[in-house]
Amino acid sequence: MKNEPIYIIGGGPAGVAAAVYLKRFSHDVQVIEPNPMLGGQVMIPHIIENYLGFPTGINGFEFASILNQHVTDLQIPIVHQKVTEIKKIDDHVFLIHLDNDETLTGKYVLCALGTKNRPLDIPGEKEWTGKGVSTCGTCDGPLFKNKTIAVVGGGDTALTETLFLSTYAQTIHLFHRRDSFRGFDSLVKKIQSIPSITIHYSSIPVEIHGNNTVTAMTYQNIETHQIFKLPVNGVFVFAGYIPDTTICNTLVDVDEKGYIIVNAQNETKTQGFYAIGDISSKSLRQIVTAMNDGAVAANHIHHDILNSLV
Amino acid sequence: MKNEPIYIIGGGPAGVAAAVYLKRFSHDVQVIEPNPMLGGQVMIPHIIENYLGFPTGINGFEFASILNQHVTDLQIPIVHQKVTEIKKIDDHVFLIHLDNDETLTGKYVLCALGTKNRPLDIPGEKEWTGKGVSTCGTCDGPLFKNKTIAVVGGGDTALTETLFLSTYAQTIHLFHRRDSFRGFDSLVKKIQSIPSITIHYSSIPVEIHGNNTVTAMTYQNIETHQIFKLPVNGVFVFAGYIPDTTICNTLVDVDEKGYIIVNAQNETKTQGFYAIGDISSKSLRQIVTAMNDGAVAANHIHHDILNSLV
Repeated sequence: MKNEPIYIIGGGPAGVAAAVYLKRFSHDVQVIEPNPMLGGQVMIPHIIENYLGFPTGINGFEFASILNQHVTDLQIPIVHQKVTEIKKIDDHVFLIHLDNDETLTGKYVLCALGTKNRPLDIPGEKEWTGKGVSTCGTCDGPLFKNKTIAVVGGGDTALTETLFLSTYAQTIHLFHRRDSFRGFDSLVKKIQSIPSITIHYSSIPVEIHGNNTVTAMTYQNIETHQIFKLPVNGVFVFAGYIPDTTICNTLVDVDEKGYIIVNAQNETKTQGFYAIGDISSKSLRQIVTAMNDGAVAANHIHHDILNSLV
Repeated sequence: MKNEPIYIIGGGPAGVAAAVYLKRFSHDVQVIEPNPMLGGQVMIPHIIENYLGFPTGINGFEFASILNQHVTDLQIPIVHQKVTEIKKIDDHVFLIHLDNDETLTGKYVLCALGTKNRPLDIPGEKEWTGKGVSTCGTCDGPLFKNKTIAVVGGGDTALTETLFLSTYAQTIHLFHRRDSFRGFDSLVKKIQSIPSITIHYSSIPVEIHGNNTVTAMTYQNIETHQIFKLPVNGVFVFAGYIPDTTICNTLVDVDEKGYIIVNAQNETKTQGFYAIGDISSKSLRQIVTAMNDGAVAANHIHHDILNSLV
């Protein structure tokens, strides 16, 4: 069953699952991931509580290490480059252009690029990134021991990270644009029970101020329209995610939010081009749903190759 | 967010995933599972190699124990009864009849019954079950130390169990009705490399013979039509799976193989009635795809309840 390699672009849970399944089906598969370590966004949370197999939870970095071990044990090659563009040149050949000007060719390509953090797009955000503005609690939490911080966001990531940050920061102001939370109720209850956390419902950040490092954040209550300026030492942004399909936008259709439209086999509109994990249009983005996509697409490719041999 | 309980029928990976997600969303959820231990078919394989998180594999029973711990830690109640029938009595109420004549009522029901082993339906199979005919390598393998056994089946389960049984049996005859294997190539290669395993391609069992215990199996080569009688001490049957939708057949449509037809949210044709995991119509039946279904259905129910409160 030798063919040219099947390329998986992105080494998060979806990409790793696809790689492991394809390799176990004995196909030649390679993962293209610019980061030195596989795992993608999985690496960020201090604890993952909703992946079955780890009842007391598992640290994101530790889980990413396990994913790396799966890939290493199966001797799946990793191309540590960034993809700049993917084109289809005829019915059966994709060209994958890399940052280092190399070009790979393959018959099957899986896009597992995941999502990026959604920026707030407010004054001061870019300017103070790395100087008090952060998108990673695990990385930067310890820098804010006994300090006052703002956390922006109302999703599960924002809540999980707020809990984690509360073990360092003296005071946390959590800003949520809605008037209630829609995620895991267990998380919401924990957050509400911690005295050092103040929740600001119906509130959005307007500007981040600094002087060498972050000094304050201006926010608005969207019901009363009142504007407040709050002294803080840091701002953690967990305001959701956005997909980036620039490298493959001629190959796919996207939904109204920009996610790649796929069928039940994770095929896009271009034959041989699959989208798996968070970048695909779907109802629930979790580790287990990403891995599901990887396994399903791998199985579909396997049967496609088997059938082409008959 | 208090309602009557959401009932999950079946405690395999799909059911456990749905239970964990629903409970973490703070819904009242109960799992209905007649067996004393949750896990379903997960319990059977001696090693699970394709669930990410365990690079060196994990024993099925051990993995089932972990699933049980998830459910215990979240204090999710388990009803240890068999469901005999499910009916919908009006737009919002399901009646779930149990073996002990009790009836439960709920607005949401998830069917996670999985599949049963497909019997060979040949003379001697029923008669010698438990006396040499088995469907569980882990349970009965040690009884065949240094003996000769037949294994029937060509799927991943058959191959995995054959490998395991080869650590006990002196000689294994593996019977596969096709002329090649279509599953994990890594497994096929391992099987082919073990001298004590003889593979009989294009061959089907015809009759199992015994005298107190199994003594022989008759089989036919379906290409040459020749019939052979082979002395064996045991027959392990891994001839695939069949869904059993008897308890809910008025509520669902099924595909040509009898699996329950669902949409992308795992809803059946009956509002409030979901099918998740192996019993649902899908392209790939794996632990991770079953858990995906459980998470997706749980998320859909959660949003359905949230929206009904607005």
